[in-house]
Amino acid sequence: MPELRRDPVVGRWVIISTERSRRPSDFISKPPARRRGPCVFCVGQESRTPDEVWALRPAASAPNSPGWLVRVVPNKFPALRIEGELEPAGEGIFDRMNGVGAHEVVIEAPEHDARIEQLPVSHVAEVLRAYRERILDLAKDPRLEYVMVFKNQGEPAGASLEHAHSQLIATPIVPMMVDEELAGGLQHFRIKHRCIWCDIIRQERRVGGRVVLEQGGLIALAPFAPRFPFETWILPVGHRSAYEETPAGEFLALATLLSEILRRMSQTLGDPPYNLMLHSAPLRAKALDHFHWHLEIIPILTRVAGFEWGTGFFINPTPPEEAARYLREGASE
Amino acid sequence: MPELRRDPVVGRWVIISTERSRRPSDFISKPPARRRGPCVFCVGQESRTPDEVWALRPAASAPNSPGWLVRVVPNKFPALRIEGELEPAGEGIFDRMNGVGAHEVVIEAPEHDARIEQLPVSHVAEVLRAYRERILDLAKDPRLEYVMVFKNQGEPAGASLEHAHSQLIATPIVPMMVDEELAGGLQHFRIKHRCIWCDIIRQERRVGGRVVLEQGGLIALAPFAPRFPFETWILPVGHRSAYEETPAGEFLALATLLSEILRRMSQTLGDPPYNLMLHSAPLRAKALDHFHWHLEIIPILTRVAGFEWGTGFFINPTPPEEAARYLREGASE
Repeated sequence: MPELRRDPVVGRWVIISTERSRRPSDFISKPPARRRGPCVFCVGQESRTPDEVWALRPAASAPNSPGWLVRVVPNKFPALRIEGELEPAGEGIFDRMNGVGAHEVVIEAPEHDARIEQLPVSHVAEVLRAYRERILDLAKDPRLEYVMVFKNQGEPAGASLEHAHSQLIATPIVPMMVDEELAGGLQHFRIKHRCIWCDIIRQERRVGGRVVLEQGGLIALAPFAPRFPFETWILPVGHRSAYEETPAGEFLALATLLSEILRRMSQTLGDPPYNLMLHSAPLRAKALDHFHWHLEIIPILTRVAGFEWGTGFFINPTPPEEAARYLREGASE
Repeated sequence: MPELRRDPVVGRWVIISTERSRRPSDFISKPPARRRGPCVFCVGQESRTPDEVWALRPAASAPNSPGWLVRVVPNKFPALRIEGELEPAGEGIFDRMNGVGAHEVVIEAPEHDARIEQLPVSHVAEVLRAYRERILDLAKDPRLEYVMVFKNQGEPAGASLEHAHSQLIATPIVPMMVDEELAGGLQHFRIKHRCIWCDIIRQERRVGGRVVLEQGGLIALAPFAPRFPFETWILPVGHRSAYEETPAGEFLALATLLSEILRRMSQTLGDPPYNLMLHSAPLRAKALDHFHWHLEIIPILTRVAGFEWGTGFFINPTPPEEAARYLREGASE
């Protein structure tokens, strides 16, 4: 059973994931195994994954059979497990709880070689809708407080399987970083009675230099203080705190903008590995005035080193104004 | 001139390092250039670095000439620059200041192929003393608030040069992560009137399972909630908040323990890349009751991916009790 543990000084939780327990010799790096034949996420291999929890498939087709376009399955090696009651416990100065939660994989397409930015935008819209459906379903579980949707593209970004997929991990506590965003947003709202992300969008639209693209009620921009070169955020222009409240009709616009940004990154930076993270409001706190959902995309171009791990400061060699200019122009020089 | 920028929501500062400004094409990875002859940090190449700011060398030898054992020079491509006055400025909702600070390199040995854990412990003690001397000197500069000493060993840990070296970056603000440690330590102290790290040490000595080694007034342990597999902390057993207050006579004990831990990690994990970070009290806040200096060592064995970047949660596949057991036993099975 995985376990959640809290650092007693800074309050950061970690997941000790015994499902994935590794001995020292397992860390010594070896070249990745070459794939022979279809992978576990490929069409026709449905029996090799846990039973699907959601799929976009023709009404006539049976679950866990071919025919699907997007398929969501529990992770076979979950970081957190859905079984059991939450049992928080103390151990002297330390705090822990059993690792209750959910860990699912969104298989984005049946074909092994599909890349999200090359799929038809109507298909990408269904992937984005799948995120919503899973959040809405997991929200029914009273043990869960948060769902983080994320995508690791490429081995340097942490992907262990090649087949296009995203993941979601539902946690029994609101993660530290979301808590910090909520606290910062609330502090601003208490003083100004405005959402800080709405204020950022207003200022960026006026100034212009960090805006990459605005269309369909959404905006892509390079943040003022990015941790990583070419870090890009996508936000709805109108205020909305919970991603899962996005009406079904709006996913096409989000898919169009996301695909365009990923294509431009790929052209500008030579198909970089990247992480994509969805920051949405906690499950028990919908329709907040002081939080605004957003996607964060970080291409993996630099190494995170001792200074960053020690301080929380990040050194970024590319000013966001330059990154935005390259991404506005689209292709690499 | 580099620039410090603050994220308006979470208050995290980043350094936009124009010295290292990179265009998209610079990020497309190429194999590292093969070294021909001595590198800039090698003995005899002193003229290829900026003038040294500290060195351990015979009294008769001239600065910036051979003869040194440990040598500290300004970084040729500094993340922050020592020149100029601090000029904080606002830009609507955003905050920035010019990148005043210091960025120095501690060259740990004259020979190119030296590795810190293979040097005589008396030599390692001089490297550790060099950290103290530089912190004491930089503390005289009223613009500086913090000095982070760190070491990146191996390319996956962010090292761009092979020759054994550490670095220090002095910042005009106390970094977020240190602030969080200070806040957590203060909260504990206000309730208990005890240092939280002293409490952790007491509990770990009693329980035993996460202690790796204790000798010479210092303790090495696997933290209860480690972000990374085999993460190891070294702390003085007696309370001390500022590293630079370590008496000269105590660096040999620290060098002995640090070298032993690095050797055991190397044996157990097959010479892994690692980061080492020194967490000490801020420069203007010596002798704190609620902060306790410590070294953090993190071998780079796993990828940090979207879940970690999005939540601040870390997934660690190795329970610290197992890591400590392997490191107590010393060699890999």
